[in-house]
Amino acid sequence: MGIVYTEMSVSLDGYIAGPGESGFDRLFRWYENGDVVWETASPGLTFRLTEVSAAELRERLANTRAFLVGRRLFDITNGWEGRHPFDVPVVVLTHEVPKDWPHLGTAPFTFVTEGGVEAAVATAKRIADGGDVGVNGGTIATQCLDAGLLDEVGMALVPVMLGGGVPYFGELENGPLDLEGPIRSVQGKDVTHLRYRVRRP
Amino acid sequence: MGIVYTEMSVSLDGYIAGPGESGFDRLFRWYENGDVVWETASPGLTFRLTEVSAAELRERLANTRAFLVGRRLFDITNGWEGRHPFDVPVVVLTHEVPKDWPHLGTAPFTFVTEGGVEAAVATAKRIADGGDVGVNGGTIATQCLDAGLLDEVGMALVPVMLGGGVPYFGELENGPLDLEGPIRSVQGKDVTHLRYRVRRP
Repeated sequence: MGIVYTEMSVSLDGYIAGPGESGFDRLFRWYENGDVVWETASPGLTFRLTEVSAAELRERLANTRAFLVGRRLFDITNGWEGRHPFDVPVVVLTHEVPKDWPHLGTAPFTFVTEGGVEAAVATAKRIADGGDVGVNGGTIATQCLDAGLLDEVGMALVPVMLGGGVPYFGELENGPLDLEGPIRSVQGKDVTHLRYRVRRP
Repeated sequence: MGIVYTEMSVSLDGYIAGPGESGFDRLFRWYENGDVVWETASPGLTFRLTEVSAAELRERLANTRAFLVGRRLFDITNGWEGRHPFDVPVVVLTHEVPKDWPHLGTAPFTFVTEGGVEAAVATAKRIADGGDVGVNGGTIATQCLDAGLLDEVGMALVPVMLGGGVPYFGELENGPLDLEGPIRSVQGKDVTHLRYRVRRP
């Protein structure tokens, strides 16, 4: 049975984006500082990872069969133009289906507008069909954590201080929460790959 | 020549205290989960550390000859009743000297009320006399970082989500900042000890 995890690149001060959507050059430096060429499914988007970080990413994605994302991430990327860089189906939790999105109906994107994060996770799990579900975006990751729907929290901890912006995790209604781990800890170049298991009550 | 560092126990969501000064039982669990008995200078305060974490703490304190703390931490601890648990002189950056503090004039505490964080760091360095200065408290650590006065950032990363509270680092005026490292990374029990070097422009 697959797990539901979140995994983001995060600064030492806890941000997944700097002020005004800045800082991505720094947060994603580890996607560009090695020799392993990784062609994504997005035209023109090629990573150059170190062997260590490539192995981490490979391992993380090996069983990932769906991503669940929030509307903010969908909007920033314009829904990755209908195809996620990792070529995995995407579930979007949103109040309204973006009616003017040109890939509506043709792309492997499912919009969940009712039932909140529980329904969105259920939909993503159904699509993943026994595989893992990756949750992306701080708000939706926090909602999943708060609702007891998250099995693992991963972070690619990057040695930068962004000094403001979008935090990985927001306020929890059901905190504090104990986690186990790191159950995996790998030092890459300009990044520490960490994973924690959420303890179920 | 000594360095100026900050080092705090911090949750995965970036807090050094939970909502309403909660969460210390979780953040400081690693001070209590081992067999190495560590008598502090504070009556009744004894740590029981694992060997790994005791070694980290020993290493960190070996050359620490002064602490610089903010007023919030001073107030929470009531100035450690005049003697820091690690028996090191303390410099307090504050707008006003706490006139009703019973240890005023007898304890090795120096209050800096003018010249801001620059003056406070200079005072702490003079007292440390070539040793290291440890900066404690998120607000003052952020101020030091912003002013280019910090050489190292350490964190004892604890596998807990506090879901709110007091963040380690606040907003930076002079961010973003690149750091180097981790220059030290040690996995303890219920804690990951990490250190980063601040890059000087």
